[in-house]
Amino acid sequence: MPVEQPPKMCAVRPLVETRLFAVEAVDLKFANGVEVTFERLAAKGRGAVLVVPILDDGRIVLIREYACGTERYELGLPKGRIDGDEPILEAANRELMEEAGFTAAQLTLLREVTSSPAYSAQRTHIVLATGLSPRRLPGDEPEPLEVVTWPLDDLDRLAFEGQCSEARSIAAMYLARTYLAHSPANDQKNPA
Amino acid sequence: MPVEQPPKMCAVRPLVETRLFAVEAVDLKFANGVEVTFERLAAKGRGAVLVVPILDDGRIVLIREYACGTERYELGLPKGRIDGDEPILEAANRELMEEAGFTAAQLTLLREVTSSPAYSAQRTHIVLATGLSPRRLPGDEPEPLEVVTWPLDDLDRLAFEGQCSEARSIAAMYLARTYLAHSPANDQKNPA
Repeated sequence: MPVEQPPKMCAVRPLVETRLFAVEAVDLKFANGVEVTFERLAAKGRGAVLVVPILDDGRIVLIREYACGTERYELGLPKGRIDGDEPILEAANRELMEEAGFTAAQLTLLREVTSSPAYSAQRTHIVLATGLSPRRLPGDEPEPLEVVTWPLDDLDRLAFEGQCSEARSIAAMYLARTYLAHSPANDQKNPA
Repeated sequence: MPVEQPPKMCAVRPLVETRLFAVEAVDLKFANGVEVTFERLAAKGRGAVLVVPILDDGRIVLIREYACGTERYELGLPKGRIDGDEPILEAANRELMEEAGFTAAQLTLLREVTSSPAYSAQRTHIVLATGLSPRRLPGDEPEPLEVVTWPLDDLDRLAFEGQCSEARSIAAMYLARTYLAHSPANDQKNPA
């Protein structure tokens, strides 16, 4: 990997802001002298958690929820924003309880992923949740979420299903499968 | 899968718009009577293509590019917006030529994925590109992009690398590997 000379950030200018979104203009000067202005979505808060909950029998726990962006019900993993100074793994377990009705005995941060990093600072922490048992916390959804399970062994079929369309969820389930395949002890050590 | 009764969309109100982004407020009334207002990023244009280029020897072709959102160089797949009425597979091959310097003899649409569907209408078409040969078209990048190759067989290691962080790229490479594993003839039929 060669040593890169990153562009110089000459200015960051707030453009517009709504309750959920803030857009900035960024003036950059690249090492070759080229100057450009990009627009980007500014980061609000401390990012999100996306949870891959795996039951002791190897089924993934998903939720089906109405998505306002795509105007249809989407099948995906429990997720949400990290509150204030909440630790990442606690945020993951809270979202798991609120959205799917489970609590996890083991929570493992697999990695942080980005979404459209060219124009968004959004970061999502992918957390594997195992040793699941039922426990529900009230959430803030406008209607109850449907909980759906799917065998991790059959992930390849789910990944091509139209109803499970979000790239983050698809990536997260493959990361979890890869992690568990390389740490065979990990999915055995759940309390019975 | 139960029959869902989707919420009624009562109003869509434009809030702010910049060169790249448009934010809307959406008033929804759910089947249970609950009324909520969500914000979302409106779709601009016909969406994006993300290309998984695989060389005849089984290496993935990636590019390393400065990302303004995360303020660092990111390793990911060639991608870009679909122009006007450009066919999806043509857009994929154009981006492949502009960003990575290859043209593909075979282009296969694997699936469409979403990003944060709760508050974004963004859709990305994942296209597998095989039968690659060198051909470069001029792009609009402010500095030359570095081309990096990585064995598809070693995808599990790349998927956990910090420098390859975008969820769409990680998902797309696993989709390509799955597709090729189930269609063994597919990566054999490239012209020699």
